[in-house]
Amino acid sequence: MAFTIEDLRLPRRMFLKRAAVVGAAVPMAGGLIAAACSDGSGGAEAAAQVAIKTTTPGPDGSGGGAQVTATATQTETAELADWEKIDHDHAKGIELFLENIKSPLTRGKGNVELAPRMENGVKVWDLTCDELEWETVPGGFEKGRGYNNMISGPILRGVEGDRVRIHVKNNLKESTSTHWHGLLIPNNMDGVGILTQPEIKPGESFTYEFSLRNAGTHMYHAHHNSMDQVNRGLLGAFIVEPASGPRYQVAKEYVLVMNDSSLGYTINGKGFPATDVLTAKKGEKILIRWMNEGLMNHPMHLHGLPMQVMAIDGYPLPAPYLCDTIDVAPGNRYDTLVDCTEEGLWAFHCHILSHAESPAGFFGLTTVLAITA
Amino acid sequence: MAFTIEDLRLPRRMFLKRAAVVGAAVPMAGGLIAAACSDGSGGAEAAAQVAIKTTTPGPDGSGGGAQVTATATQTETAELADWEKIDHDHAKGIELFLENIKSPLTRGKGNVELAPRMENGVKVWDLTCDELEWETVPGGFEKGRGYNNMISGPILRGVEGDRVRIHVKNNLKESTSTHWHGLLIPNNMDGVGILTQPEIKPGESFTYEFSLRNAGTHMYHAHHNSMDQVNRGLLGAFIVEPASGPRYQVAKEYVLVMNDSSLGYTINGKGFPATDVLTAKKGEKILIRWMNEGLMNHPMHLHGLPMQVMAIDGYPLPAPYLCDTIDVAPGNRYDTLVDCTEEGLWAFHCHILSHAESPAGFFGLTTVLAITA
Amino acid sequence: MAFTIEDLRLPRRMFLKRAAVVGAAVPMAGGLIAAACSDGSGGAEAAAQVAIKTTTPGPDGSGGGAQVTATATQTETAELADWEKIDHDHAKGIELFLENIKSPLTRGKGNVELAPRMENGVKVWDLTCDELEWETVPGGFEKGRGYNNMISGPILRGVEGDRVRIHVKNNLKESTSTHWHGLLIPNNMDGVGILTQPEIKPGESFTYEFSLRNAGTHMYHAHHNSMDQVNRGLLGAFIVEPASGPRYQVAKEYVLVMNDSSLGYTINGKGFPATDVLTAKKGEKILIRWMNEGLMNHPMHLHGLPMQVMAIDGYPLPAPYLCDTIDVAPGNRYDTLVDCTEEGLWAFHCHILSHAESPAGFFGLTTVLAITA
Repeated sequence: MAFTIEDLRLPRRMFLKRAAVVGAAVPMAGGLIAAACSDGSGGAEAAAQVAIKTTTPGPDGSGGGAQVTATATQTETAELADWEKIDHDHAKGIELFLENIKSPLTRGKGNVELAPRMENGVKVWDLTCDELEWETVPGGFEKGRGYNNMISGPILRGVEGDRVRIHVKNNLKESTSTHWHGLLIPNNMDGVGILTQPEIKPGESFTYEFSLRNAGTHMYHAHHNSMDQVNRGLLGAFIVEPASGPRYQVAKEYVLVMNDSSLGYTINGKGFPATDVLTAKKGEKILIRWMNEGLMNHPMHLHGLPMQVMAIDGYPLPAPYLCDTIDVAPGNRYDTLVDCTEEGLWAFHCHILSHAESPAGFFGLTTVLAITA
Repeated sequence: MAFTIEDLRLPRRMFLKRAAVVGAAVPMAGGLIAAACSDGSGGAEAAAQVAIKTTTPGPDGSGGGAQVTATATQTETAELADWEKIDHDHAKGIELFLENIKSPLTRGKGNVELAPRMENGVKVWDLTCDELEWETVPGGFEKGRGYNNMISGPILRGVEGDRVRIHVKNNLKESTSTHWHGLLIPNNMDGVGILTQPEIKPGESFTYEFSLRNAGTHMYHAHHNSMDQVNRGLLGAFIVEPASGPRYQVAKEYVLVMNDSSLGYTINGKGFPATDVLTAKKGEKILIRWMNEGLMNHPMHLHGLPMQVMAIDGYPLPAPYLCDTIDVAPGNRYDTLVDCTEEGLWAFHCHILSHAESPAGFFGLTTVLAITA
Repeated sequence: MAFTIEDLRLPRRMFLKRAAVVGAAVPMAGGLIAAACSDGSGGAEAAAQVAIKTTTPGPDGSGGGAQVTATATQTETAELADWEKIDHDHAKGIELFLENIKSPLTRGKGNVELAPRMENGVKVWDLTCDELEWETVPGGFEKGRGYNNMISGPILRGVEGDRVRIHVKNNLKESTSTHWHGLLIPNNMDGVGILTQPEIKPGESFTYEFSLRNAGTHMYHAHHNSMDQVNRGLLGAFIVEPASGPRYQVAKEYVLVMNDSSLGYTINGKGFPATDVLTAKKGEKILIRWMNEGLMNHPMHLHGLPMQVMAIDGYPLPAPYLCDTIDVAPGNRYDTLVDCTEEGLWAFHCHILSHAESPAGFFGLTTVLAITA
């Protein structure tokens, strides 16, 4: 997973033009990394280069450069015509996205795998439900809620047949409960507040315990006042591997949990340009586990390469199929495989374009699959 | 289909807590029915009990208790903190839902099968198009329109090869026409006002007659000023069984017609807590026929058990697949099978959570699949 | 593709009734063409006739009759009751739709195939990006943007293995870039402004060149400030046939690009009644290539006949299936086949009824599949 920014390539001419426009605002503290980019199709397209600036991390060490840059930008763009401002802002967003790869521009990172501890053969996790200020885009803080102080919550991963125990501590100012979305478990562990268990009141805890019976890409999220709680971030991925070993032979996997509304359009709690880049080496196959915890369908479109849809809601499809746009409905999960056969920065975004781009540039449900040599 | 309320089980501790909070408002005219609830997974979860109150039916015999209870609740909750009110209202909704199973809390019931009469080998139905006040949730009356004074209209059921005749009488204050959505019929029977037939003016009738050629889960609904008329309830299910016999071997089937907008989020004309419960005995297989007559996609999520998707729009899928969330688009119908292998009260709701839950509790497109021993 | 209006059949009684209501407004310059319409099911439905009026083309030769008629209609409907006005407006819309078949009621037609010119074995197309006033419905002009002054842009069609070159000239007042949605091409030809190429500034040009590697139903559209640019019409179809020959053996094909928002609900840049009719002779098989360039899902419902879904995003489905309503998400393309076994005027519309019908009649995403003997 070690991705070096030097692998990224942007056409030199593009960068040079951009530098002329925004040069005053974007001091090039870093150097240019040039590299040839083979076309692969026999054409005579221009050679390509990489242009990424380094940033001075903010006082807290987590990348405060974005806001400084934004101030400078504001002054500068006052003299731009409307259409030039559109270009400038689009470029700015992409620069911030590339910068974010090297040094995160927002505080807080969710969707981090949490290893269980073993207690007498049981895999045990501790989860807290927390009120938090969450930075979804550089400088954009929202009143969120998250498991273990992060959005998406930690990734829980087990194997079919595991006995698992999850202690949920409610640090919220209201009651909650935790639903294990997709897992086949006893009804009294299903986590629907009041219907299958007493709600977990503020300050209280509840222990869930069950066996993992069905492999697949699943989720966990609040199920009490859930329209509000899930919307604000009380959600996470629960991956169950088959007893026979991982279902897919891949170089790496990505877990992408989408959300909308309260925190804006987010993937794993972040909107573009703070969304995580996906990376792969040319020739690798990767697995993307899609999950939609929002209130809208999101048809995610991958440029340049097809996705093979292997499973829905953890259940293998009898007839996997190829597509380049997968319409993920709220509550659904999809496993998709991508053969990374083509180098480049492949845009990857919701094709409801109002979730992904405005005259101020890309935002929300946009990321990039960066395939390097 | 005979479901006894005594089969329902809620954890005792939950009920006792709840009773302490809302006791004043919810007189326990009925008794508690306790029963052990086996975990099925080797865990040591608490035994479970059932707590359902009986209600005094209203003057008209159709369950007027809801409104009385609501008044009492209002007074009581004035002293609750915001988060306690959320809990209280969630509990109240679930209690009303369980109560509604025993004694309907709303007047009017749609989606009732209507047996045809035979005339010289032809199956004949009479339908009226009616203006009506429809109670979608306890105390919530809406200006609806329905076939035979109900929403959803009566279920019509035939067999491939049947000759059928449907007399449609228009009692509305405006013209209408009736479209047989999904059925393969002659064009002049297709029911598109003006395009395939003269509109049926107020007070007029029109007789449709055709043969049933394609088995499956189909619908009928208005097709003149239809955005308004269908939205307000002029819709119903038309089921055609194969000539060779029923397509699925199941213990029972449910027809769930979803709608949104004018009457709120409804299943068969009712919003939670007035939605019909689905019930099954452990070990039974059930068929759910999904139909969406609304203006939005509804990804319906079943807790605890997968659904096997067998057919779309009445056509068997060549590769049936499993899922736990089925995204039903307007106009589509899906046949799904559920193996009821796990006891319990399994929440079953649209995973666009804003169609199913608010701080005031579950509402709209929410029901429960109750599986009993 | 030569469709004669005389093939259309409407029930005589319907027309006669209609004529009585709107007779003053709809002078019958044309004649009635009567023809028997066989039921095909043994029923005794009435014989049918055709009633289409001819219009006097406007001064520019492109059908100015609609607006004159509309004026007359306004006066006349002042005396109608509300429900009669609903009927009148519904009838008016259908009449205009039928009229539009004979003589287009709006200026401008998009989605026209553009033959490439050959240069040293390379297929070459010239595209311009233009600001334009676009008439989406009779009398309804919108500030659109289009390729080669049309919406949808010209259909580009090639064969797997082709080398193609597309010169894009930007005549807009703002920058743009062109993305080849679905095509597998080198990254620097992918057309994402700033990310994979410099944006094409006003007055500038950019030449794309690549080989066609994956057959299928693809698209091209703006990918810079794209939420606005695509929305306003910078979009078109890019069809790639397999090297081995066309994938489907059909009598004809239709390319239907849907859009919503800025220009209203449109198919190939036109809303009902200006949408193109689909026609076929009884017994023919037709291919419909669906593309959604809008911001919403559109579940398109065909009356009377199933669609066989053969491919998604250009990739053949391993298990094609039948349906009558296909939910097309933004960014997706579907290939569907229809066996035109039944004569008639089959309504074909988005089943989100608010995209297709209002009390003022059909509008937006509505057309008709007209199957004639």
